[in-house]
Amino acid sequence: MNLETQWIVGFVDGEGCFHVVINRHPEMATGFQVLPEFTVVQHQRDIKVLQALKKHFGCGVVRVNHGDRMAYRVRAMDHLVERIVPFFMAHTLKTRKNIDFLKFRDVVLLMQQGIHLTPEGVERIRRVAAGMNRGRLR
Amino acid sequence: MNLETQWIVGFVDGEGCFHVVINRHPEMATGFQVLPEFTVVQHQRDIKVLQALKKHFGCGVVRVNHGDRMAYRVRAMDHLVERIVPFFMAHTLKTRKNIDFLKFRDVVLLMQQGIHLTPEGVERIRRVAAGMNRGRLR
Repeated sequence: MNLETQWIVGFVDGEGCFHVVINRHPEMATGFQVLPEFTVVQHQRDIKVLQALKKHFGCGVVRVNHGDRMAYRVRAMDHLVERIVPFFMAHTLKTRKNIDFLKFRDVVLLMQQGIHLTPEGVERIRRVAAGMNRGRLR
Repeated sequence: MNLETQWIVGFVDGEGCFHVVINRHPEMATGFQVLPEFTVVQHQRDIKVLQALKKHFGCGVVRVNHGDRMAYRVRAMDHLVERIVPFFMAHTLKTRKNIDFLKFRDVVLLMQQGIHLTPEGVERIRRVAAGMNRGRLR
């Protein structure tokens, strides 16, 4: 299955999710781990679409999400910086999900500069992430 | 907002719904009314996307769906036959939603032939419609 660029944009406008999890993590100097993640969840019937996304972006994994739902997921910083973020910068999402994406991008770029490795940086990222996924359907 | 063809296909693969409602309706000779409907539901924040779909297809309405959700909806038989069905025949959905679409198309084409105006026809449509929207997420 080959995916056209605009099909991916439309599908991610519908089904994609950009989010940032900040976990307590005693092994990190700051006490926190910052995990940006791009996911697309589908019923397992449509696993082929998730595999096609994985093939298109050349990164990420397809895993069980919950019950009969599967997720395509990209967490690796290099892949977010080099593949996911540039794709959605070049091909703008049309829904308000683009606002989440831009905040997600801010977090990823801050992390690329190592900002998340200081307590102040984690706090700064927390403030950006707090504005995401708010008031969205589901 | 202009929508590219493949963006629409991807977005409908995620968010679109093809369904057929069969209501009791004493004024119809068969006692039943068959209502095929194409809908796309979004949070009201993204009403512009629904309006852009309406503009693209040149038919349908944008209405409140439920609470803070809005729906783009096409019910008119002429518009389904001339605009919605040909679009998704020319530009194939990539998810299993295409199976729903093909059954939806069968129902629309049967109705175009007036099959829904006899009790046997309503029963035939009911059998096609029973296979739709089954096992799909949400």
